[in-house]
Amino acid sequence: MSQSEPKKLAIIATKGSLDWAYPPFILSSTAAALGYEVQIFFTFYGLQLLKKDMNLKVTSLGNPGMPMPMPMPVMLQALPGMQGMMTSMMKAKMKKKGIASVEELRDLCIESGVKMIGCQMTIDLFDFSATDLISEIELGGAATFFEFAGEADVTLFI
Amino acid sequence: MSQSEPKKLAIIATKGSLDWAYPPFILSSTAAALGYEVQIFFTFYGLQLLKKDMNLKVTSLGNPGMPMPMPMPVMLQALPGMQGMMTSMMKAKMKKKGIASVEELRDLCIESGVKMIGCQMTIDLFDFSATDLISEIELGGAATFFEFAGEADVTLFI
Amino acid sequence: MSQSEPKKLAIIATKGSLDWAYPPFILSSTAAALGYEVQIFFTFYGLQLLKKDMNLKVTSLGNPGMPMPMPMPVMLQALPGMQGMMTSMMKAKMKKKGIASVEELRDLCIESGVKMIGCQMTIDLFDFSATDLISEIELGGAATFFEFAGEADVTLFI
Repeated sequence: MSQSEPKKLAIIATKGSLDWAYPPFILSSTAAALGYEVQIFFTFYGLQLLKKDMNLKVTSLGNPGMPMPMPMPVMLQALPGMQGMMTSMMKAKMKKKGIASVEELRDLCIESGVKMIGCQMTIDLFDFSATDLISEIELGGAATFFEFAGEADVTLFI
Repeated sequence: MSQSEPKKLAIIATKGSLDWAYPPFILSSTAAALGYEVQIFFTFYGLQLLKKDMNLKVTSLGNPGMPMPMPMPVMLQALPGMQGMMTSMMKAKMKKKGIASVEELRDLCIESGVKMIGCQMTIDLFDFSATDLISEIELGGAATFFEFAGEADVTLFI
Repeated sequence: MSQSEPKKLAIIATKGSLDWAYPPFILSSTAAALGYEVQIFFTFYGLQLLKKDMNLKVTSLGNPGMPMPMPMPVMLQALPGMQGMMTSMMKAKMKKKGIASVEELRDLCIESGVKMIGCQMTIDLFDFSATDLISEIELGGAATFFEFAGEADVTLFI
């Protein structure tokens, strides 16, 4: 590779919860700031991250690695309202710590020239409407991902 | 790298649920169709994807990113029979949308020359029997993965 | 790349449960044994893997791919004490099968020269204290990860 070509980062974003929305947007915006050319391919649950109204949730169920403010029986974590409460708490904590919201990070990625591709197959599978998604994206398939990833320096499945 | 060498894709498949079975097989078969040389190293729960009888399940528990046909309290998602119902619903939806089954995609990978390696340590750990697994695989360890991955153009941990 | 330069493995470790603690440490120690230069960037829940007292847990909730000793309704898996029981069972099984503990594998990584970086943003977010973490680490941000990953042969998001 010639010295003058920019480094390239290719990400597949497959998760659609509030916590897992951060890694693709943080890594992409950071890489873009470092001069990387960046593409994210959103597929499976990751397609939620392309919705105009993201409305993402977080849960501690199935994730014993999540630091809890106090010990809490698993059963209690499954009670009605608990997922909403955890989501509010995480958003409040992020804000208090000065961490940008997922919406702000996504905007930053778009402004930084990160190319975002929505998986056409997933859109069909989940019966998503194109009007539900932000307009700054292209649609494509797995082959579209490899076009860029095959030349990338860093490839990550998130 | 010389122009004539094919691109290489190295995947570690570590998940054993119905939804997460799709990414390794879809990405691998697509890459193979594009002329890539592909290896998948199946380890941890991913070893389930090498069983003759896969019988994979899906759940929305712990995954608030899963689009639901209707809002459903988390507690309800934990009720007996719910996991089986979700699995049936996902299979039916995939079929209706013309998406190949996991079994068909795995066959396609094998026919396309995708090399599949089962993690010997995991087989021992889970007390799997070699006769439970499909015959088109080799066995190996993490070092086997790096032999190929160290030369690969795209490396993904799924 | 010149022949004499060692291969490089860059990992982002983002999970903090007992089962998902194994892949970064097993892959890193194996790669180091093969002569790779290795860096792991611990972020989000992965920061749990840098605690002096790891005390990691495992659960089958949300993971229908986990092989169970006997079929067990999902609801039962959420009962108080079940997570602790599964954690004990996994540790006992690993020990019986001669697989090193997470603590031993982490030590092996350190002895093998694997460089470990803790994500400063996550430390602030989770209100972790530097004295809770092992001393053999550096602190950094996503940019620190790319410094190494941009030159790496294998990049994995775990």
